[in-house]
Amino acid sequence: MDASVTVGSHRVASGDEADRYWMGLAIELAKKGRGFVEPNPMVGCIAVANGHAIAQGFHQRYGGHHAEVEALAGLGPADLREATVYVTLEPCSHFGKTPPCAPFVLERRPKRVVVAMPDPFPAVSGRGIALLREAGIEVDVGVHRSEAEQLNAPYLKLLHFKRPWVTAKWAMSLDGAIATKSGDSKWISSDRSRERVHQTRAKMDAMITGIGTVLADNPMLTARPKQYNGPVRNPIRVVLDRNLRIPLECQLVASANEHPTIVVTLQRSSSRKIETLRSTGVDVLVLEEGETRSTLEFALDHLGTHRCTHAMLECGPALMGHAMDRNCVDEIECFVAPIVLGGNSIRPVGGSGIEKLCDAQHWVLSSSTPFGDDILLTYRLANS
Amino acid sequence: MDASVTVGSHRVASGDEADRYWMGLAIELAKKGRGFVEPNPMVGCIAVANGHAIAQGFHQRYGGHHAEVEALAGLGPADLREATVYVTLEPCSHFGKTPPCAPFVLERRPKRVVVAMPDPFPAVSGRGIALLREAGIEVDVGVHRSEAEQLNAPYLKLLHFKRPWVTAKWAMSLDGAIATKSGDSKWISSDRSRERVHQTRAKMDAMITGIGTVLADNPMLTARPKQYNGPVRNPIRVVLDRNLRIPLECQLVASANEHPTIVVTLQRSSSRKIETLRSTGVDVLVLEEGETRSTLEFALDHLGTHRCTHAMLECGPALMGHAMDRNCVDEIECFVAPIVLGGNSIRPVGGSGIEKLCDAQHWVLSSSTPFGDDILLTYRLANS
Repeated sequence: MDASVTVGSHRVASGDEADRYWMGLAIELAKKGRGFVEPNPMVGCIAVANGHAIAQGFHQRYGGHHAEVEALAGLGPADLREATVYVTLEPCSHFGKTPPCAPFVLERRPKRVVVAMPDPFPAVSGRGIALLREAGIEVDVGVHRSEAEQLNAPYLKLLHFKRPWVTAKWAMSLDGAIATKSGDSKWISSDRSRERVHQTRAKMDAMITGIGTVLADNPMLTARPKQYNGPVRNPIRVVLDRNLRIPLECQLVASANEHPTIVVTLQRSSSRKIETLRSTGVDVLVLEEGETRSTLEFALDHLGTHRCTHAMLECGPALMGHAMDRNCVDEIECFVAPIVLGGNSIRPVGGSGIEKLCDAQHWVLSSSTPFGDDILLTYRLANS
Repeated sequence: MDASVTVGSHRVASGDEADRYWMGLAIELAKKGRGFVEPNPMVGCIAVANGHAIAQGFHQRYGGHHAEVEALAGLGPADLREATVYVTLEPCSHFGKTPPCAPFVLERRPKRVVVAMPDPFPAVSGRGIALLREAGIEVDVGVHRSEAEQLNAPYLKLLHFKRPWVTAKWAMSLDGAIATKSGDSKWISSDRSRERVHQTRAKMDAMITGIGTVLADNPMLTARPKQYNGPVRNPIRVVLDRNLRIPLECQLVASANEHPTIVVTLQRSSSRKIETLRSTGVDVLVLEEGETRSTLEFALDHLGTHRCTHAMLECGPALMGHAMDRNCVDEIECFVAPIVLGGNSIRPVGGSGIEKLCDAQHWVLSSSTPFGDDILLTYRLANS
């Protein structure tokens, strides 16, 4: 049984259990591509023969080799005659940035291929699996499918909904305040939490905020991690600003030539200010009269069209509440700091909110991690 | 070296490291008494000879044997000639509910005694240690002292400040709300969280709430755990009710004969209503004119006088904020539920609050534990 697991000198599993073990490792491999491969999906690949991994690889960066090529490039049919190839996503069947992977795998004639999930990308969508099966290779699909779908939830969201995956981030005291009653918010969270935020921004395609935050904090919204293993992305910065109140001298406008910057405003806003902003390098998007989408929804559609996979929302309670009211958030990163602010402090989420607890959407805690004195709670929408 | 550690067949440590290992185990033993021994401290005791534990015990319930007797009762000088006795608190030297422990240990003549911390209880306060040393027994003090002080922080607080240790508990959404904008709060937290609250109440000497919570929720404030290993306490229920608005038909008043109930009010309150409440079994405490203490502070002093070690505060934002403003809280149990309420939802802590972040008291996260879909974050005041 070539799918058993050898750990040290002990054979610990066979069959289905081994499939889950190796696919689990392939998913862990795939995760190393996070922040570098988008808008591609993250993919990992492991070849196993006689209970040992004989090759492994993952998709490392957009435009680079796919995982199957990373893993199997040095191997031929003689190596893979008794081997199972585990791959977290269906091998592709189309020419994109690189040649298709399914024929590449086929040429090497592994005994069996195990795929965690089919690729719903229209140009693949089952064709990769069909190609392998037609050539007589045994293909099993669905091992750790749920984990693979979780892994590439942003990729799947963009594919299905044409909008980026949105992570809402806030840092609050343990009584749920993002600023004191006088508005003091620098800093609720620890140095280590803020470093973590910069590391997360470095994997983002877009940072979204509201004009209130721009006026209050004059942020840069760039990714400035001190420690980061890999190329830092330069996320598009998006300001939702219905009445075009953005100051021309703010940091975002001043740095618009270096860091792509979008301001979304309404048609009634001053066309002269729109022109001035555009001349400084800001991309001003105008929401026309009669548009039913909010500036946020408009921005998300725009980002989706430009294949932005992952956007982070860092903003005040009004926009955060609006995003919740309109179900625009897929994931929450909530830093809880070990302080109590009390009084009429400022809360993280405003908007309309809900009347009855039974109307609340349910989230699922996906991780809790200490950062300095804080704890980071990460949630995904249930059933997302 | 009799203080080395034997784990399986491997000797892993000696000297100081072994002392910390065995004292760590004694502290874990001591914790089993939590909720049963108060107002006594929790104490654990282990006797170790030739790297093996030869006896162990802990103080199990108020009025029962002390840890040293639990551990050493069956042993004599022949057994302990080469032994070290680890005890988490100085053996007592006075007759209380039971005879003193220091002479008991002395009679058995262990080679060495290691004590985590002296007992500041006035009738002991170094006399137990002195007794052993005068008899020629080697005594080392201070191994895991900080952990032992943490363990018995409520005991130490009552001793030093004549007030119970106060644990503030709230359950909030992940945007820091304890109820929706319409006041719906049943239930923010999961069944498992609420079971945990009842288990915690079962270890409490007192439950404190405000009249607002009584009027809104008509609570029983009793400990009703479904699963509990040991006798459930019947905590004193305390309602802070300056204007004596408590309804005579509320659950607290109706059950006052079964469950001790205190109402704290001001002198100006109706003396007729005070008499009626007293006739139903409620203990009404009247805060006199000119008193500078708040009803909460008065209640805490009263509970301290009656040797209540541990009180839990379950209340609305006004009282919780007051308790924070007056530094009356020692520990926080914050359940975070995986929902977002948004809007003008109700926050956990009101009161005056703070203006500047630099004025915030710092808390230390002592544990984070999932309960059903929730996560319980437990904090202690830094340097407490």
